[in-house]
Amino acid sequence: MINITLIGTGNVALQLKEVFEKTDGIQVNRIISGRGDFISKIKLKKAKSDIYIIAISDDAISSVSQKLKDSEKLIVHTSGSVSMNALPEGNRRGVFYPLQTFSKNRKIDFQSVPICIETEDKNDLVLLEKLARLVSSSVYEINSEQRKSLHLAAVFVNNFTNHMYHIGNELCDTENIPFEILKPLITETALKVNSLTPFDAQTGPARREDKKTIAKQIAQLADSNHKKIYQAITNSILNAHGKEL
Amino acid sequence: MINITLIGTGNVALQLKEVFEKTDGIQVNRIISGRGDFISKIKLKKAKSDIYIIAISDDAISSVSQKLKDSEKLIVHTSGSVSMNALPEGNRRGVFYPLQTFSKNRKIDFQSVPICIETEDKNDLVLLEKLARLVSSSVYEINSEQRKSLHLAAVFVNNFTNHMYHIGNELCDTENIPFEILKPLITETALKVNSLTPFDAQTGPARREDKKTIAKQIAQLADSNHKKIYQAITNSILNAHGKEL
Repeated sequence: MINITLIGTGNVALQLKEVFEKTDGIQVNRIISGRGDFISKIKLKKAKSDIYIIAISDDAISSVSQKLKDSEKLIVHTSGSVSMNALPEGNRRGVFYPLQTFSKNRKIDFQSVPICIETEDKNDLVLLEKLARLVSSSVYEINSEQRKSLHLAAVFVNNFTNHMYHIGNELCDTENIPFEILKPLITETALKVNSLTPFDAQTGPARREDKKTIAKQIAQLADSNHKKIYQAITNSILNAHGKEL
Repeated sequence: MINITLIGTGNVALQLKEVFEKTDGIQVNRIISGRGDFISKIKLKKAKSDIYIIAISDDAISSVSQKLKDSEKLIVHTSGSVSMNALPEGNRRGVFYPLQTFSKNRKIDFQSVPICIETEDKNDLVLLEKLARLVSSSVYEINSEQRKSLHLAAVFVNNFTNHMYHIGNELCDTENIPFEILKPLITETALKVNSLTPFDAQTGPARREDKKTIAKQIAQLADSNHKKIYQAITNSILNAHGKEL
């Protein structure tokens, strides 16, 4: 049995709570709000868990984890962009980063969520990997340097991609076209990279070096931010394929 | 029975051929290569179809369709970015635009592909809609002006999104991380807009106005094109949510 104290009440903490509570071999001892003012050293030390999982906002990880300093237990955070070294030096420490976007109203199949783990000590890696494999079939050992790149990659494929959908939505709105109409294309674009690399899957005016269409579409965009995005991505596609405008 | 002559041998033409040939009520009379030099007026007029579907590259639509001029049959093209007026004036004309990305090695469920139709004449709309509804459950009447916006929206949600995946792939490569690890995130990001608007689904450093992370990530990017994309999309997300950097 792996005993867990979970610190945090956001989307990641809630998802972990849900999946841990229904998994044999994991026991959630305690859930503590991530708000620093409510966490006392005593409260935390009383919890006597094998692993303390800090699932709170990036900025608060360092200060909250200080309250666990000198504990003999393994402390991990769940952030993509914070180094393992943000946790107190001298403690057993690590990272348990589930690479997925969580929102309150969507069910996620946790078995397919990649879990990126890192620990300072080899023995702790065994424990953290055991926990990860109980909830996911996709576990990777990823160090802090790699995680920094991975998190940046996630910003592109998640945050920035979602903004592409938003611009698509806005362009539909201006012409009274239901956004629904774009959804099969959005889904297929995502599924396509399961069978083709994004490099090989690239199509469109930039890939074809279709300068006429590119110029027309930039002129067609009313929003200056959207124009800049169109230009920057077009240049980058051309460059990736060894071309220039 | 609707009799079709299909002009073109690219991905769209092949997908249409496949779905038409297996659909009751549709007969593909003839398939003609889209290469202008092989199309003679005689060949086309002999085909005696109800609808001539021109599924060739945008630039060739106007000249190839001239060879059908003065035919009494309905001529349509399949392009998102070419106006219906590119087809010969005086002829019965229209557009049959399937809004999806087609590639040789991927099976598409055509029933869920949105078909955008437009005709000059009301009676032709009935015929073209009949054809569309035989192959898809999702048929929209979209005029040339709307189609121009829709096609631009498709560039953002398909071509540009795919380039976001490519950048994600490159960032993984530099740290020897398998691109596989990003795929569940890519899929969930796409599926999320089925239950949330892209506006509401937006997360990440720009949405949180997390200036520290934004600055760090821009510095982290080695490719100057990627830097420009990061900056342009970040500004646009901030702007969409009423903020400024």
